[in-house]
Amino acid sequence: MSALPPMAAPHRFTVRVYYEDTDLAGIVYYANYLKFIERARTEWVRRLGIDQAALKAESGIVFAVRRVEADYLSPARFDDLLDVETAPVDLRLARIVLRQTVLRGQTALFDARVTLVALGEDGRPRRLPRNLTDRIGG
Amino acid sequence: MSALPPMAAPHRFTVRVYYEDTDLAGIVYYANYLKFIERARTEWVRRLGIDQAALKAESGIVFAVRRVEADYLSPARFDDLLDVETAPVDLRLARIVLRQTVLRGQTALFDARVTLVALGEDGRPRRLPRNLTDRIGG
Amino acid sequence: MSALPPMAAPHRFTVRVYYEDTDLAGIVYYANYLKFIERARTEWVRRLGIDQAALKAESGIVFAVRRVEADYLSPARFDDLLDVETAPVDLRLARIVLRQTVLRGQTALFDARVTLVALGEDGRPRRLPRNLTDRIGG
Amino acid sequence: MSALPPMAAPHRFTVRVYYEDTDLAGIVYYANYLKFIERARTEWVRRLGIDQAALKAESGIVFAVRRVEADYLSPARFDDLLDVETAPVDLRLARIVLRQTVLRGQTALFDARVTLVALGEDGRPRRLPRNLTDRIGG
Repeated sequence: MSALPPMAAPHRFTVRVYYEDTDLAGIVYYANYLKFIERARTEWVRRLGIDQAALKAESGIVFAVRRVEADYLSPARFDDLLDVETAPVDLRLARIVLRQTVLRGQTALFDARVTLVALGEDGRPRRLPRNLTDRIGG
Repeated sequence: MSALPPMAAPHRFTVRVYYEDTDLAGIVYYANYLKFIERARTEWVRRLGIDQAALKAESGIVFAVRRVEADYLSPARFDDLLDVETAPVDLRLARIVLRQTVLRGQTALFDARVTLVALGEDGRPRRLPRNLTDRIGG
Repeated sequence: MSALPPMAAPHRFTVRVYYEDTDLAGIVYYANYLKFIERARTEWVRRLGIDQAALKAESGIVFAVRRVEADYLSPARFDDLLDVETAPVDLRLARIVLRQTVLRGQTALFDARVTLVALGEDGRPRRLPRNLTDRIGG
Repeated sequence: MSALPPMAAPHRFTVRVYYEDTDLAGIVYYANYLKFIERARTEWVRRLGIDQAALKAESGIVFAVRRVEADYLSPARFDDLLDVETAPVDLRLARIVLRQTVLRGQTALFDARVTLVALGEDGRPRRLPRNLTDRIGG
Protein backbone atom coordinates (compact mmCIF):
# COMPACT_ATOMS: atom_id res chain seq x y z
CA MET A 1 0.00 0.00 0.00
CA SER A 2 2.56 2.55 -1.00
CA ALA A 3 5.69 2.41 -3.08
CA LEU A 4 5.71 -0.84 -4.99
CA PRO A 5 8.56 -3.29 -5.32
CA PRO A 6 9.92 -3.38 -8.87
CA MET A 7 7.97 -5.87 -10.92
CA ALA A 8 9.40 -8.65 -12.97
CA ALA A 9 8.49 -7.04 -16.26
CA PRO A 10 6.31 -4.13 -17.31
CA HIS A 11 3.28 -4.69 -19.49
CA ARG A 12 4.10 -4.21 -23.16
CA PHE A 13 1.80 -2.96 -25.92
CA THR A 14 2.63 -2.25 -29.56
CA VAL A 15 1.55 0.85 -31.46
CA ARG A 16 2.00 1.55 -35.16
CA VAL A 17 2.32 5.23 -36.13
CA TYR A 18 -0.17 6.19 -38.86
CA TYR A 19 -0.76 9.39 -40.84
CA GLU A 20 -3.36 10.54 -38.32
CA ASP A 21 -0.69 10.63 -35.59
CA THR A 22 1.74 12.93 -37.36
CA ASP A 23 1.81 16.68 -37.82
CA LEU A 24 3.41 18.98 -40.37
CA ALA A 25 6.76 18.72 -38.60
CA GLY A 26 6.78 15.12 -39.85
CA ILE A 27 6.70 13.67 -36.34
CA VAL A 28 4.06 12.40 -33.93
CA TYR A 29 1.97 15.30 -32.58
CA TYR A 30 2.66 15.74 -28.88
CA ALA A 31 -0.90 15.13 -27.65
CA ASN A 32 -1.04 11.79 -29.43
CA TYR A 33 1.41 10.12 -27.05
CA LEU A 34 -1.34 10.46 -24.46
CA LYS A 35 -3.56 8.44 -26.78
CA PHE A 36 -0.90 5.77 -27.18
CA ILE A 37 -0.43 5.35 -23.43
CA GLU A 38 -4.18 5.36 -22.82
CA ARG A 39 -4.57 2.45 -25.27
CA ALA A 40 -1.81 0.68 -23.35
CA ARG A 41 -3.55 1.32 -20.02
CA THR A 42 -6.78 -0.14 -21.39
CA GLU A 43 -4.93 -3.32 -22.40
CA TRP A 44 -3.04 -3.41 -19.08
CA VAL A 45 -6.31 -3.19 -17.14
CA ARG A 46 -7.81 -5.89 -19.36
CA ARG A 47 -4.80 -8.10 -18.64
CA LEU A 48 -5.44 -7.67 -14.92
CA GLY A 49 -8.85 -9.19 -15.50
CA ILE A 50 -10.87 -5.99 -15.25
CA ASP A 51 -13.70 -5.34 -17.68
CA GLN A 52 -14.06 -1.55 -17.64
CA ALA A 53 -17.48 -1.62 -19.28
CA ALA A 54 -18.79 -4.11 -16.69
CA LEU A 55 -17.13 -2.17 -13.87
CA LYS A 56 -18.94 0.97 -14.93
CA ALA A 57 -22.27 -0.80 -15.42
CA GLU A 58 -22.14 -2.66 -12.10
CA SER A 59 -20.56 -0.16 -9.73
CA GLY A 60 -20.54 3.09 -11.67
CA ILE A 61 -16.79 3.29 -11.27
CA VAL A 62 -14.57 4.79 -13.95
CA PHE A 63 -10.86 5.56 -13.98
CA ALA A 64 -9.83 9.17 -14.46
CA VAL A 65 -6.43 10.74 -15.02
CA ARG A 66 -5.55 13.21 -12.27
CA ARG A 67 -2.01 14.16 -13.23
CA VAL A 68 0.48 13.62 -16.03
CA GLU A 69 4.21 14.39 -15.97
CA ALA A 70 5.69 13.71 -19.38
CA ASP A 71 9.11 14.10 -20.95
CA TYR A 72 9.44 14.21 -24.72
CA LEU A 73 12.86 12.70 -25.35
CA SER A 74 13.01 12.01 -29.08
CA PRO A 75 10.38 12.16 -31.82
CA ALA A 76 8.49 9.19 -33.24
CA ARG A 77 7.84 9.17 -36.98
CA PHE A 78 5.38 7.82 -39.53
CA ASP A 79 5.33 4.04 -39.80
CA ASP A 80 7.36 3.53 -36.61
CA LEU A 81 6.46 0.45 -34.63
CA LEU A 82 6.53 1.53 -31.00
CA ASP A 83 6.33 -0.27 -27.68
CA VAL A 84 4.50 1.15 -24.71
CA GLU A 85 5.71 -0.18 -21.38
CA THR A 86 3.38 0.22 -18.42
CA ALA A 87 4.25 -0.46 -14.79
CA PRO A 88 2.67 0.61 -11.50
CA VAL A 89 5.05 2.58 -9.27
CA ASP A 90 2.80 3.67 -6.43
CA LEU A 91 -0.50 2.36 -5.09
CA ARG A 92 -2.87 3.91 -2.55
CA LEU A 93 -6.45 3.20 -1.57
CA ALA A 94 -7.94 5.50 -4.17
CA ARG A 95 -5.09 6.31 -6.49
CA ILE A 96 -2.42 4.59 -8.52
CA VAL A 97 0.65 5.98 -10.23
CA LEU A 98 1.89 4.33 -13.42
CA ARG A 99 5.10 4.80 -15.27
CA GLN A 100 4.53 4.57 -19.01
CA THR A 101 7.35 4.71 -21.51
CA VAL A 102 7.13 4.77 -25.30
CA LEU A 103 10.11 3.14 -27.00
CA ARG A 104 11.36 2.50 -30.51
CA GLY A 105 13.55 -0.53 -30.09
CA GLN A 106 15.70 0.21 -27.06
CA THR A 107 15.35 3.99 -27.35
CA ALA A 108 12.91 5.74 -25.02
CA LEU A 109 11.05 8.48 -26.91
CA PHE A 110 8.50 9.51 -24.31
CA ASP A 111 8.43 8.88 -20.58
CA ALA A 112 5.47 9.66 -18.33
CA ARG A 113 4.18 9.29 -14.80
CA VAL A 114 0.39 9.11 -14.81
CA THR A 115 -1.76 9.36 -11.69
CA LEU A 116 -5.14 7.64 -11.93
CA VAL A 117 -8.08 7.76 -9.56
CA ALA A 118 -11.31 5.80 -9.39
CA LEU A 119 -14.46 7.93 -9.51
CA GLY A 120 -18.04 6.97 -8.70
CA GLU A 121 -21.09 8.11 -10.64
CA ASP A 122 -21.21 11.25 -8.52
CA GLY A 123 -17.71 12.12 -9.72
CA ARG A 124 -16.23 11.65 -6.24
CA PRO A 125 -13.21 9.46 -5.47
CA ARG A 126 -13.77 5.78 -4.68
CA ARG A 127 -11.52 2.97 -3.54
CA LEU A 128 -9.79 1.30 -6.43
CA PRO A 129 -11.41 -2.00 -7.44
CA ARG A 130 -10.24 -4.94 -5.30
CA ASN A 131 -9.07 -7.08 -8.18
CA LEU A 132 -6.84 -4.22 -9.27
CA THR A 133 -5.17 -3.67 -5.89
CA ASP A 134 -4.95 -7.41 -5.17
CA ARG A 135 -3.29 -8.17 -8.47
CA ILE A 136 -0.83 -5.32 -8.25
CA GLY A 137 -0.22 -4.84 -4.58
CA GLY A 138 1.20 -8.28 -4.07
CA MET B 1 -40.99 19.20 -47.23
CA SER B 2 -38.58 18.17 -49.92
CA ALA B 3 -36.08 20.05 -52.05
CA LEU B 4 -35.61 23.44 -50.48
CA PRO B 5 -35.64 26.76 -52.28
CA PRO B 6 -32.20 28.36 -52.33
CA MET B 7 -31.70 30.36 -49.16
CA ALA B 8 -30.57 33.93 -48.97
CA ALA B 9 -27.18 33.04 -47.55
CA PRO B 10 -25.58 29.95 -46.04
CA HIS B 11 -24.49 29.91 -42.43
CA ARG B 12 -20.83 30.84 -42.10
CA PHE B 13 -18.36 29.64 -39.47
CA THR B 14 -14.64 30.34 -39.21
CA VAL B 15 -11.98 27.70 -38.47
CA ARG B 16 -8.28 28.29 -37.85
CA VAL B 17 -5.95 25.44 -38.85
CA TYR B 18 -3.66 24.42 -35.97
CA TYR B 19 -0.81 21.92 -35.68
CA GLU B 20 -3.22 19.21 -34.48
CA ASP B 21 -5.07 19.38 -37.81
CA THR B 22 -2.08 18.78 -40.08
CA ASP B 23 -0.23 15.61 -41.03
CA LEU B 24 3.26 14.88 -42.28
CA ALA B 25 2.27 15.87 -45.82
CA GLY B 26 2.06 19.41 -44.42
CA ILE B 27 -1.67 19.68 -45.09
CA VAL B 28 -4.88 19.13 -43.15
CA TYR B 29 -5.45 15.41 -42.51
CA TYR B 30 -8.48 14.24 -44.49
CA ALA B 31 -10.58 13.12 -41.52
CA ASN B 32 -10.26 16.51 -39.86
CA TYR B 33 -12.50 18.24 -42.39
CA LEU B 34 -15.30 16.19 -40.86
CA LYS B 35 -14.44 17.78 -37.52
CA PHE B 36 -14.53 21.25 -39.05
CA ILE B 37 -17.96 20.75 -40.60
CA GLU B 38 -19.30 19.17 -37.42
CA ARG B 39 -18.28 22.27 -35.45
CA ALA B 40 -20.07 24.34 -38.08
CA ARG B 41 -23.23 22.19 -37.80
CA THR B 42 -23.23 22.65 -34.02
CA GLU B 43 -23.10 26.43 -34.47
CA TRP B 44 -25.71 26.30 -37.23
CA VAL B 45 -28.09 24.33 -35.01
CA ARG B 46 -27.45 26.78 -32.17
CA ARG B 47 -28.27 29.67 -34.50
CA LEU B 48 -31.60 28.00 -35.28
CA GLY B 49 -32.37 28.24 -31.58
CA ILE B 50 -31.85 24.58 -30.75
CA ASP B 51 -30.03 23.60 -27.56
CA GLN B 52 -28.72 20.11 -28.32
CA ALA B 53 -28.01 19.34 -24.66
CA ALA B 54 -31.56 20.33 -23.63
CA LEU B 55 -33.02 18.44 -26.61
CA LYS B 56 -31.26 15.28 -25.51
CA ALA B 57 -32.19 15.75 -21.85
CA GLU B 58 -35.87 16.50 -22.54
CA SER B 59 -36.72 14.23 -25.44
CA GLY B 60 -33.77 11.89 -25.74
CA ILE B 61 -33.24 13.03 -29.32
CA VAL B 62 -29.79 13.29 -30.84
CA PHE B 63 -28.66 14.00 -34.38
CA ALA B 64 -26.64 11.36 -36.16
CA VAL B 65 -24.81 11.40 -39.47
CA ARG B 66 -26.17 8.79 -41.88
CA ARG B 67 -24.18 9.55 -45.01
CA VAL B 68 -21.33 11.74 -46.18
CA GLU B 69 -20.31 12.44 -49.78
CA ALA B 70 -17.18 14.55 -49.79
CA ASP B 71 -14.88 15.94 -52.47
CA TYR B 72 -11.37 17.01 -51.55
CA LEU B 73 -10.63 19.80 -54.00
CA SER B 74 -7.51 21.51 -52.71
CA PRO B 75 -5.52 21.16 -49.48
CA ALA B 76 -5.77 23.47 -46.47
CA ARG B 77 -2.54 24.29 -44.64
CA PHE B 78 -1.26 25.25 -41.20
CA ASP B 79 -2.46 28.65 -40.02
CA ASP B 80 -5.09 28.97 -42.76
CA LEU B 81 -8.23 30.80 -41.74
CA LEU B 82 -11.08 28.86 -43.31
CA ASP B 83 -14.78 29.45 -43.71
CA VAL B 84 -17.33 26.67 -43.46
CA GLU B 85 -20.57 27.39 -45.27
CA THR B 86 -23.58 25.31 -44.26
CA ALA B 87 -26.93 25.25 -46.05
CA PRO B 88 -29.84 22.78 -46.03
CA VAL B 89 -30.57 21.33 -49.45
CA ASP B 90 -33.23 18.73 -48.67
CA LEU B 91 -35.62 18.27 -45.78
CA ARG B 92 -37.86 15.30 -44.92
CA LEU B 93 -39.77 14.30 -41.82
CA ALA B 94 -36.89 12.43 -40.27
CA ARG B 95 -33.87 13.43 -42.28
CA ILE B 96 -32.12 16.52 -43.53
CA VAL B 97 -29.39 16.93 -46.11
CA LEU B 98 -26.87 19.74 -45.72
CA ARG B 99 -24.33 21.04 -48.13
CA GLN B 100 -21.18 22.06 -46.32
CA THR B 101 -18.27 23.72 -48.06
CA VAL B 102 -14.87 24.64 -46.63
CA LEU B 103 -13.31 27.67 -48.29
CA ARG B 104 -10.12 29.69 -48.09
CA GLY B 105 -11.17 33.09 -49.35
CA GLN B 106 -13.17 32.39 -52.52
CA THR B 107 -11.56 29.00 -53.15
CA ALA B 108 -13.53 25.88 -52.19
CA LEU B 109 -11.19 23.28 -50.68
CA PHE B 110 -13.70 20.69 -49.52
CA ASP B 111 -17.30 20.18 -50.52
CA ALA B 112 -19.68 17.75 -48.82
CA ARG B 113 -23.27 16.60 -48.70
CA VAL B 114 -24.14 15.35 -45.25
CA THR B 115 -27.33 13.45 -44.41
CA LEU B 116 -28.49 13.76 -40.81
CA VAL B 117 -31.22 11.88 -38.98
CA ALA B 118 -32.81 12.33 -35.58
CA LEU B 119 -32.60 9.31 -33.30
CA GLY B 120 -34.46 8.57 -30.07
CA GLU B 121 -32.93 6.96 -27.00
CA ASP B 122 -33.69 3.54 -28.48
CA GLY B 123 -31.52 4.44 -31.47
CA ARG B 124 -34.51 4.46 -33.82
CA PRO B 125 -35.39 7.32 -36.20
CA ARG B 126 -37.59 10.12 -34.93
CA ARG B 127 -39.18 13.14 -36.55
CA LEU B 128 -36.82 16.06 -36.68
CA PRO B 129 -37.50 18.64 -33.96
CA ARG B 130 -40.29 21.06 -34.90
CA ASN B 131 -38.25 24.20 -34.40
CA LEU B 132 -35.72 22.83 -36.85
CA THR B 133 -38.19 22.04 -39.62
CA ASP B 134 -40.18 25.22 -39.00
CA ARG B 135 -37.15 27.44 -39.15
CA ILE B 136 -35.76 25.82 -42.25
CA GLY B 137 -38.77 24.57 -44.14
CA GLY B 138 -40.53 27.95 -44.13
CA MET C 1 -7.62 -0.89 -66.51
CA SER C 2 -11.17 -0.13 -65.46
CA ALA C 3 -13.74 -2.02 -63.45
CA LEU C 4 -11.98 -4.85 -61.70
CA PRO C 5 -13.07 -8.46 -61.49
CA PRO C 6 -14.09 -9.42 -57.96
CA MET C 7 -11.05 -10.50 -56.01
CA ALA C 8 -10.67 -13.69 -54.08
CA ALA C 9 -10.80 -11.96 -50.72
CA PRO C 10 -10.54 -8.39 -49.50
CA HIS C 11 -7.65 -7.29 -47.31
CA ARG C 12 -8.55 -7.49 -43.64
CA PHE C 13 -7.26 -5.31 -40.80
CA THR C 14 -8.30 -5.31 -37.16
CA VAL C 15 -9.03 -2.17 -35.12
CA ARG C 16 -9.75 -1.98 -31.40
CA VAL C 17 -11.99 0.90 -30.29
CA TYR C 18 -10.39 2.94 -27.49
CA TYR C 19 -11.61 5.88 -25.39
CA GLU C 20 -10.05 8.36 -27.84
CA ASP C 21 -12.39 7.08 -30.57
CA THR C 22 -15.67 7.62 -28.75
CA ASP C 23 -17.74 10.72 -28.13
CA LEU C 24 -20.30 11.69 -25.51
CA ALA C 25 -22.99 9.74 -27.35
CA GLY C 26 -21.06 6.64 -26.24
CA ILE C 27 -20.24 5.63 -29.79
CA VAL C 28 -17.36 6.08 -32.22
CA TYR C 29 -17.17 9.70 -33.42
CA TYR C 30 -18.06 9.84 -37.11
CA ALA C 31 -14.74 11.29 -38.33
CA ASN C 32 -12.78 8.49 -36.69
CA TYR C 33 -13.98 5.85 -39.15
CA LEU C 34 -11.87 7.73 -41.70
CA LYS C 35 -8.87 7.14 -39.42
CA PHE C 36 -9.67 3.44 -39.18
CA ILE C 37 -9.89 2.99 -42.95
CA GLU C 38 -6.75 5.04 -43.50
CA ARG C 39 -4.83 2.72 -41.18
CA ALA C 40 -6.21 -0.19 -43.19
CA ARG C 41 -5.14 1.43 -46.48
CA THR C 42 -1.61 1.87 -45.15
CA GLU C 43 -1.45 -1.82 -44.27
CA TRP C 44 -3.03 -2.81 -47.60
CA VAL C 45 -0.43 -0.78 -49.51
CA ARG C 46 2.32 -2.32 -47.39
CA ARG C 47 0.98 -5.80 -48.23
CA LEU C 48 1.23 -4.92 -51.92
CA GLY C 49 4.94 -4.38 -51.36
CA ILE C 50 4.91 -0.59 -51.47
CA ASP C 51 6.97 1.39 -48.99
CA GLN C 52 5.21 4.76 -48.86
CA ALA C 53 8.16 6.49 -47.18
CA ALA C 54 10.58 5.22 -49.86
CA LEU C 55 8.09 6.06 -52.62
CA LYS C 56 7.93 9.64 -51.41
CA ALA C 57 11.69 9.93 -50.95
CA GLU C 58 12.57 8.44 -54.35
CA SER C 59 9.86 9.77 -56.64
CA GLY C 60 8.10 12.42 -54.59
CA ILE C 61 4.84 10.58 -55.01
CA VAL C 62 2.20 10.53 -52.31
CA PHE C 63 -1.33 9.17 -52.29
CA ALA C 64 -4.15 11.63 -51.66
CA VAL C 65 -7.85 11.10 -51.07
CA ARG C 66 -9.95 12.80 -53.73
CA ARG C 67 -13.46 11.65 -52.77
CA VAL C 68 -15.22 9.73 -50.01
CA GLU C 69 -18.77 8.36 -50.10
CA ALA C 70 -19.61 6.86 -46.74
CA ASP C 71 -22.68 5.27 -45.19
CA TYR C 72 -22.97 5.05 -41.43
CA LEU C 73 -25.01 1.89 -40.89
CA SER C 74 -24.73 1.09 -37.22
CA PRO C 75 -22.56 2.53 -34.41
CA ALA C 76 -19.35 0.99 -33.10
CA ARG C 77 -18.76 1.18 -29.35
CA PHE C 78 -15.92 1.30 -26.82
CA ASP C 79 -13.84 -1.88 -26.71
CA ASP C 80 -15.31 -3.26 -29.93
CA LEU C 81 -12.90 -5.29 -32.03
CA LEU C 82 -13.59 -4.28 -35.61
CA ASP C 83 -12.49 -5.56 -38.99
CA VAL C 84 -11.76 -3.26 -41.89
CA GLU C 85 -12.11 -4.91 -45.29
CA THR C 86 -10.39 -3.18 -48.21
CA ALA C 87 -10.79 -4.10 -51.86
CA PRO C 88 -10.10 -2.21 -55.09
CA VAL C 89 -13.19 -1.73 -57.25
CA ASP C 90 -11.93 0.49 -60.03
CA LEU C 91 -8.46 1.23 -61.38
CA ARG C 92 -7.34 3.92 -63.86
CA LEU C 93 -3.95 5.30 -64.82
CA ALA C 94 -3.92 7.93 -62.12
CA ARG C 95 -6.71 6.99 -59.78
CA ILE C 96 -8.00 4.01 -57.86
CA VAL C 97 -11.31 3.45 -56.11
CA LEU C 98 -11.42 1.28 -53.01
CA ARG C 99 -14.37 -0.13 -51.18
CA GLN C 100 -13.71 -0.17 -47.45
CA THR C 101 -16.11 -1.68 -44.97
CA VAL C 102 -15.92 -1.66 -41.18
CA LEU C 103 -17.52 -4.71 -39.58
CA ARG C 104 -18.19 -6.06 -36.11
CA GLY C 105 -18.39 -9.78 -36.67
CA GLN C 106 -20.65 -10.20 -39.72
CA THR C 107 -22.38 -6.84 -39.27
CA ALA C 108 -21.29 -3.97 -41.49
CA LEU C 109 -21.20 -0.73 -39.47
CA PHE C 110 -19.63 1.61 -42.00
CA ASP C 111 -19.30 1.27 -45.75
CA ALA C 112 -17.25 3.61 -47.94
CA ARG C 113 -16.01 4.16 -51.46
CA VAL C 114 -12.71 6.03 -51.42
CA THR C 115 -11.09 7.53 -54.50
CA LEU C 116 -7.32 7.90 -54.30
CA VAL C 117 -4.93 9.69 -56.64
CA ALA C 118 -1.16 9.82 -56.86
CA LEU C 119 0.35 13.28 -56.62
CA GLY C 120 3.86 14.46 -57.43
CA GLU C 121 5.83 16.98 -55.41
CA ASP C 122 4.21 19.77 -57.41
CA GLY C 123 0.82 18.57 -56.22
CA ARG C 124 -0.22 17.49 -59.73
CA PRO C 125 -1.59 14.04 -60.61
CA ARG C 126 0.85 11.27 -61.55
CA ARG C 127 0.47 7.75 -62.80
CA LEU C 128 -0.05 5.31 -60.00
CA PRO C 129 3.11 3.36 -59.11
CA ARG C 130 3.68 0.36 -61.38
CA ASN C 131 3.90 -2.21 -58.61
CA LEU C 132 0.48 -1.06 -57.41
CA THR C 133 -1.25 -1.35 -60.79
CA ASP C 134 0.56 -4.58 -61.66
CA ARG C 135 -0.36 -6.25 -58.42
CA ILE C 136 -3.98 -5.19 -58.57
CA GLY C 137 -4.79 -4.92 -62.24
CA GLY C 138 -3.53 -8.38 -63.11
CA MET D 1 17.02 35.66 -18.16
CA SER D 2 15.58 33.33 -15.57
CA ALA D 3 12.51 33.48 -13.38
CA LEU D 4 10.23 36.12 -14.79
CA PRO D 5 8.44 38.84 -12.86
CA PRO D 6 4.68 38.30 -12.82
CA MET D 7 3.16 39.86 -15.90
CA ALA D 8 0.29 42.28 -15.93
CA ALA D 9 -2.10 39.76 -17.43
CA PRO D 10 -1.79 36.38 -19.07
CA HIS D 11 -2.72 35.89 -22.70
CA ARG D 12 -6.30 34.70 -23.04
CA PHE D 13 -7.76 32.46 -25.75
CA THR D 14 -11.27 31.04 -26.02
CA VAL D 15 -12.08 27.44 -26.90
CA ARG D 16 -15.52 25.96 -27.53
CA VAL D 17 -15.91 22.25 -26.68
CA TYR D 18 -17.33 20.27 -29.61
CA TYR D 19 -18.38 16.64 -30.04
CA GLU D 20 -14.92 15.70 -31.31
CA ASP D 21 -13.41 16.72 -27.95
CA THR D 22 -15.56 14.50 -25.75
CA ASP D 23 -15.40 10.81 -24.96
CA LEU D 24 -17.94 8.25 -23.78
CA ALA D 25 -17.59 9.49 -20.19
CA GLY D 26 -19.35 12.63 -21.45
CA ILE D 27 -16.34 14.84 -20.72
CA VAL D 28 -13.37 16.20 -22.64
CA TYR D 29 -10.88 13.42 -23.41
CA TYR D 30 -7.69 13.99 -21.45
CA ALA D 31 -5.34 14.30 -24.45
CA ASN D 32 -7.46 17.04 -25.98
CA TYR D 33 -6.49 19.60 -23.34
CA LEU D 34 -3.04 19.45 -24.93
CA LYS D 35 -4.66 20.46 -28.22
CA PHE D 36 -6.45 23.36 -26.54
CA ILE D 37 -3.27 24.73 -24.98
CA GLU D 38 -1.31 24.26 -28.20
CA ARG D 39 -3.88 26.38 -30.05
CA ALA D 40 -3.45 29.00 -27.33
CA ARG D 41 0.35 28.90 -27.66
CA THR D 42 0.05 29.45 -31.41
CA GLU D 43 -2.09 32.53 -30.82
CA TRP D 44 0.21 33.73 -28.02
CA VAL D 45 3.24 33.45 -30.31
CA ARG D 46 1.33 35.25 -33.06
CA ARG D 47 0.49 38.05 -30.59
CA LEU D 48 4.20 38.42 -29.85
CA GLY D 49 4.68 39.16 -33.53
CA ILE D 50 6.21 35.84 -34.52
CA ASP D 51 5.17 34.16 -37.75
CA GLN D 52 5.96 30.48 -37.17
CA ALA D 53 5.74 29.60 -40.85
CA ALA D 54 8.18 32.39 -41.78
CA LEU D 55 10.45 31.48 -38.86
CA LYS D 56 10.67 27.92 -40.12
CA ALA D 57 11.18 28.95 -43.74
CA GLU D 58 13.86 31.54 -42.98
CA SER D 59 15.85 29.97 -40.16
CA GLY D 60 14.59 26.39 -39.99
CA ILE D 61 13.59 26.93 -36.39
CA VAL D 62 10.57 25.23 -34.90
CA PHE D 63 9.30 25.10 -31.34
CA ALA D 64 9.06 21.71 -29.68
CA VAL D 65 7.54 20.61 -26.40
CA ARG D 66 10.12 19.07 -24.08
CA ARG D 67 8.07 18.51 -20.93
CA VAL D 68 4.49 18.76 -19.71
CA GLU D 69 3.30 18.66 -16.11
CA ALA D 70 -0.47 18.73 -16.04
CA ASP D 71 -3.13 18.55 -13.34
CA TYR D 72 -6.66 17.58 -14.26
CA LEU D 73 -8.76 19.44 -11.71
CA SER D 74 -12.32 19.23 -12.97
CA PRO D 75 -13.84 18.00 -16.24
CA ALA D 76 -14.92 20.20 -19.14
CA ARG D 77 -18.09 19.19 -20.97
CA PHE D 78 -19.74 19.46 -24.38
CA ASP D 79 -20.58 23.01 -25.42
CA ASP D 80 -18.51 24.59 -22.63
CA LEU D 81 -16.88 27.87 -23.55
CA LEU D 82 -13.41 27.71 -22.03
CA ASP D 83 -10.61 30.21 -21.55
CA VAL D 84 -6.98 29.26 -21.90
CA GLU D 85 -4.60 31.54 -20.01
CA THR D 86 -0.96 31.48 -21.08
CA ALA D 87 1.90 33.16 -19.26
CA PRO D 88 5.68 32.65 -19.33
CA VAL D 89 7.13 31.70 -15.97
CA ASP D 90 10.75 30.98 -16.81
CA LEU D 91 12.98 32.00 -19.71
CA ARG D 92 16.47 30.75 -20.65
CA LEU D 93 18.56 31.06 -23.77
CA ALA D 94 17.16 27.98 -25.43
CA ARG D 95 14.09 27.13 -23.41
CA ILE D 96 10.95 28.73 -22.05
CA VAL D 97 8.47 27.48 -19.50
CA LEU D 98 4.83 28.50 -19.80
CA ARG D 99 2.01 28.13 -17.37
CA GLN D 100 -1.21 27.36 -19.17
CA THR D 101 -4.54 27.11 -17.40
CA VAL D 102 -7.90 26.10 -18.85
CA LEU D 103 -10.83 27.73 -17.07
CA ARG D 104 -14.62 27.71 -17.24
CA GLY D 105 -15.54 31.09 -15.83
CA GLN D 106 -13.45 31.45 -12.67
CA THR D 107 -12.96 27.71 -12.20
CA ALA D 108 -9.64 26.20 -13.23
CA LEU D 109 -10.22 22.81 -14.89
CA PHE D 110 -6.72 22.04 -16.11
CA ASP D 111 -3.40 23.51 -15.09
CA ALA D 112 -0.11 22.82 -16.86
CA ARG D 113 3.54 23.80 -16.98
CA VAL D 114 4.90 23.36 -20.49
CA THR D 115 8.60 23.52 -21.36
CA LEU D 116 9.37 24.55 -24.93
CA VAL D 117 12.64 24.53 -26.80
CA ALA D 118 13.69 25.89 -30.17
CA LEU D 119 15.10 23.31 -32.59
CA GLY D 120 17.03 23.81 -35.80
CA GLU D 121 16.59 21.75 -38.95
CA ASP D 122 19.08 19.24 -37.59
CA GLY D 123 16.81 18.71 -34.60
CA ARG D 124 19.34 20.26 -32.21
CA PRO D 125 18.58 23.05 -29.73
CA ARG D 126 18.89 26.65 -30.86
CA ARG D 127 18.62 29.97 -29.10
CA LEU D 128 15.07 31.15 -28.87
CA PRO D 129 14.21 33.80 -31.49
CA ARG D 130 15.25 37.31 -30.43
CA ASN D 131 11.83 38.86 -30.84
CA LEU D 132 10.48 36.23 -28.46
CA THR D 133 13.02 36.80 -25.70
CA ASP D 134 12.96 40.57 -26.16
CA ARG D 135 9.22 40.78 -25.93
CA ILE D 136 8.96 38.53 -22.91
CA GLY D 137 12.15 39.05 -21.03
CA GLY D 138 11.65 42.77 -20.61
